[in-house]
Amino acid sequence: MQNYITDTFKTASENTSHTQTATESVINYIRNLILNRELRIGDKLPTENELCEQLGVGRGSVREAVKRLEAISLLNVRRGDGTYISDVRQNKAFDSLLYKIVLEDIDFQEIVDYRIQLEIGIMQLAIRNVTEDILKELKNNLFQFSQYITNEEQKSPVVLHDLDIQFHNILGKASKNRLLADVYAVSLSLFSPYMLSNYGKGQVQSSPEVTIENHTLLLNALENKDISLATYAVVNSTQLWQKWNDYTSSPFQ
Amino acid sequence: MQNYITDTFKTASENTSHTQTATESVINYIRNLILNRELRIGDKLPTENELCEQLGVGRGSVREAVKRLEAISLLNVRRGDGTYISDVRQNKAFDSLLYKIVLEDIDFQEIVDYRIQLEIGIMQLAIRNVTEDILKELKNNLFQFSQYITNEEQKSPVVLHDLDIQFHNILGKASKNRLLADVYAVSLSLFSPYMLSNYGKGQVQSSPEVTIENHTLLLNALENKDISLATYAVVNSTQLWQKWNDYTSSPFQ
Repeated sequence: MQNYITDTFKTASENTSHTQTATESVINYIRNLILNRELRIGDKLPTENELCEQLGVGRGSVREAVKRLEAISLLNVRRGDGTYISDVRQNKAFDSLLYKIVLEDIDFQEIVDYRIQLEIGIMQLAIRNVTEDILKELKNNLFQFSQYITNEEQKSPVVLHDLDIQFHNILGKASKNRLLADVYAVSLSLFSPYMLSNYGKGQVQSSPEVTIENHTLLLNALENKDISLATYAVVNSTQLWQKWNDYTSSPFQ
Repeated sequence: MQNYITDTFKTASENTSHTQTATESVINYIRNLILNRELRIGDKLPTENELCEQLGVGRGSVREAVKRLEAISLLNVRRGDGTYISDVRQNKAFDSLLYKIVLEDIDFQEIVDYRIQLEIGIMQLAIRNVTEDILKELKNNLFQFSQYITNEEQKSPVVLHDLDIQFHNILGKASKNRLLADVYAVSLSLFSPYMLSNYGKGQVQSSPEVTIENHTLLLNALENKDISLATYAVVNSTQLWQKWNDYTSSPFQ
C-alpha cells in the first residue's frame, strides 16, 4: 500500500507551522514514525544528518528533540554507535497525561463521571475475559481487607488505601486488555489521594461493611457474568467515594 | 486532616527500594507532591539542598531528576531564581502513555475492544452533556464529509482521515469531561494509522454510504439521547473499521 506518513506529516506541519518550533517538528516526525510502526523497539533512528536533511532543520533542533525524547526514556543514545528506540515495556512510563490532568485542576464531579465510565468498561471486558487465577487474587485481596478491618485496633489509612488500589489494579488485569488496564492504572494514581483522604476521614471506621460489600458485589458480578450488577456496583462504590469526599470540599486541606 | 504524603512516600520507597534509583525516588517524591496538590502550577520547588536533606540523596540525583522533569516540560528552571511547576495546559503533552501502548505491539483485537469501551463511555456522557453548538459542529463535519465523498473525483485518504478524526474529537468534547476527552484524543492518535490505511485500501470508495451512516447514527443517538442506538453505532462502526483492517494482517505493510 501507499505510504502516507510523509503526507500526514506535511499536512500536520502546514496546519501548525506558525506555532511549531523546529524541535517540535522533529519530535512529531519521530512520533509519526513510531505511530506508523516504521520504528519499533530496538530500531535505530536515522542519523542526525539524515534528520536535518529530511526535515530541513538545524543540527541543534535535532539534538534538542533527541535529548527530550531520551529524558522520557523513549530513546536510548549509545555513544559512537547511534540512537535507538528504547524498550518502553521495561521503563516506568512518565505519566505526562497524568500530570496534565492533575495540574488542570479538574472538578471532582468530572473525576467521578470519568471513573464510572472507565470502570464500567473494565468490568464489561473483565466479565468476558476473567480467569480462575485472577478471581483467586481478588478473593485473596478481599480476605486480607476484611481481616485487617476486623482484627486491627488502629486501622492505618495507608494500608487500607494500598489494599483498595491493589483490588482495582487486579480488576484492570482481569479485563485482559493492556490498553484499558494501562489507562486505568494511570487513572488510579489520580483517584488515589481522594481514596487515602477518605480513609483518613474515617470511611471504613464508620461503615466497614459498606466498603467490603462494594468489592464483594464487583467480585460477584464477575463470577456470575452479570453486567447489570457490575454497573450497579461501580455506581454504588463511586457514590460512596464521592459522599466521603463531599465531607470537605477537597481532600487537600 | 493528617498529611499522608510522607507515609505513602515511605511505604512506596520501602516496597521498591531494591529497584528504585536515587533519581527515581526524587521523581516519585515530586510526583506525589503534585498528585496530593501540595505543588500546583506556578509553585516553586523546594531547593536542591532541601530535597537532598529530606530524601537523603545526593545533589547529582536531584539534578538528574529535575533535568528529566524539565525535559517533559513539567518543570521550568529559572537560573538564579528557582525551579517552578510549568503551566502544562500550555504545553503539548508528551504522550508517553501512547508510546508505551504503540511500542508494546498490542493485538488489533485488543485495540478494537478498547475502542468500543472508550467510545461507549464517551457517548454515555455526551448524551447527558451535549450542547446545541456541538451538535452543529458535528453536523457541519458530516456535511463536509458527504460533500467531499459526493463531489470529488479523486478522494484523498488523508482528507477523509482528517475529517473522520475531527468528528471523533468533537464527540470527545461533547462529553464535557476533560479526562475522558484527553484519553480519547491520545487514543485517536493510536487508531489513526489504521483509519488512514483503511481509507487507502478503498473503504469509502467501495461503500461511501456505510461510512456516512455510522456517523449519522452517532449523531442521531445524541439528538435522541438514545444510549442503545449509541452502543449499536459504536459497535457497528468499530466492526467496519476491523473488517477493513482484516483485508491485510496489518496496516503497516
